[in-house]
Amino acid sequence: MTHTLILLRHGQSDWNQKNLFTGWVDVRLTEQGRAEAKRGGELLAEQGVLPDVLHTSLLSRAIQTANIALDAADRLWIPTKRSWRLNERHYGALQGKDKAQTLEEFGEEQFTTWRRSFDAPPPAIDADDEFAQTNDPRYAGLDDMPATESLKLVIDRMLPYWEGEIVPDLSAGKTVIVAAHGNSLRALVKHLDGISDEDIAGLNIPTGIPLVYELDDEMRPVKAARYLDPEAAAAGAAAVASQGKK
Amino acid sequence: MTHTLILLRHGQSDWNQKNLFTGWVDVRLTEQGRAEAKRGGELLAEQGVLPDVLHTSLLSRAIQTANIALDAADRLWIPTKRSWRLNERHYGALQGKDKAQTLEEFGEEQFTTWRRSFDAPPPAIDADDEFAQTNDPRYAGLDDMPATESLKLVIDRMLPYWEGEIVPDLSAGKTVIVAAHGNSLRALVKHLDGISDEDIAGLNIPTGIPLVYELDDEMRPVKAARYLDPEAAAAGAAAVASQGKK
Repeated sequence: MTHTLILLRHGQSDWNQKNLFTGWVDVRLTEQGRAEAKRGGELLAEQGVLPDVLHTSLLSRAIQTANIALDAADRLWIPTKRSWRLNERHYGALQGKDKAQTLEEFGEEQFTTWRRSFDAPPPAIDADDEFAQTNDPRYAGLDDMPATESLKLVIDRMLPYWEGEIVPDLSAGKTVIVAAHGNSLRALVKHLDGISDEDIAGLNIPTGIPLVYELDDEMRPVKAARYLDPEAAAAGAAAVASQGKK
Repeated sequence: MTHTLILLRHGQSDWNQKNLFTGWVDVRLTEQGRAEAKRGGELLAEQGVLPDVLHTSLLSRAIQTANIALDAADRLWIPTKRSWRLNERHYGALQGKDKAQTLEEFGEEQFTTWRRSFDAPPPAIDADDEFAQTNDPRYAGLDDMPATESLKLVIDRMLPYWEGEIVPDLSAGKTVIVAAHGNSLRALVKHLDGISDEDIAGLNIPTGIPLVYELDDEMRPVKAARYLDPEAAAAGAAAVASQGKK
């Protein structure tokens, strides 16, 4: 018997729409983002891929996505766990900055490095920056709150949650849905599919379309993961890849 | 230091609107019910009564209420626990029946007994009734699923969850919100306020208005619980009391 893992990236947020770097800033979904989440839940219901347990980040846009998708799939009642370890990458001092303006100001090479380099984080955000989460109560118990992160640092903080919280649910025979973000999900996909540090830069996960893994008892994919709407996924990945371009 | 407990009864559902006995039938909120939940969350935010942990039933209308209220209060990210022990009273064979029609068919005395008697449950529902939850996956692990319940039976199954799951959160210093139903919340209020088996019949909890308890270390109220909108609460309780009347 295989174990079923569903990954769901949140859809459009207020700041995606405004083309701002978001990271840990807690923005909400737009109407389009809510519609994406609903469609994601309908795909789960239509194809009978029904989660038994939900894992989310602590960010509202991922939780909204999960709530809307599970409502559409008639699974609002499943157990729920949340962790900062599933949060989006912390974008450091770029949080709150316009992507196109950042591209223009710093040039394509620096811009691409910040967005896609595996291990080069952007400059750290100041604790008193308006877009830092210094006094946010959801991180009150978190000792070493990041001030910036590379994808490598996201992997470092995400993997203990994968091993400690998600794998045990899968091993117990539960179908797990993880509702999270572009970079925390890229970190997980890199781990599951054994993607190299270089190649992960080219991987874009489309929003709102459930990505389903079948895993063996060692939590290795038994075949390639599948999107529940492959055509929309291909179009969505292309759209993400062009972000920040004018 | 006292412990803060917030009770929130879900607002109007599709079947409240249609005046049907609902019980464990998993109907959704109406637009009015969603607006009530939002207002409930706004009251929490405005008055700074901010929950640290959420407990809900397994019924969608309570979970929707919690999700909408926590969104309005900017607390979507708090830990969440769910249990069938917070479900609405199981209304037995009355589930799915029209309240006014039931009143007419069986007379006021029998109708009032079924709705308000402390320990007389309605007739049991058949396992193959369309409004039984016989194959509902959310109760798959539940050995003795009720087929009907009195308020006394609701108390019997609710109190272990209160003692085992909610009190420990309160004792740990967390502000707890319980999003649930007319009868599971009446059961809890009866316990907290030491209301007699006779007097509980006259207690109506209005929908969508947070009811806040301050409890001592023995989980006894240090003063009378307060509604965050007392005027609306008084009007709402009167409306609930007249349900089923023509």
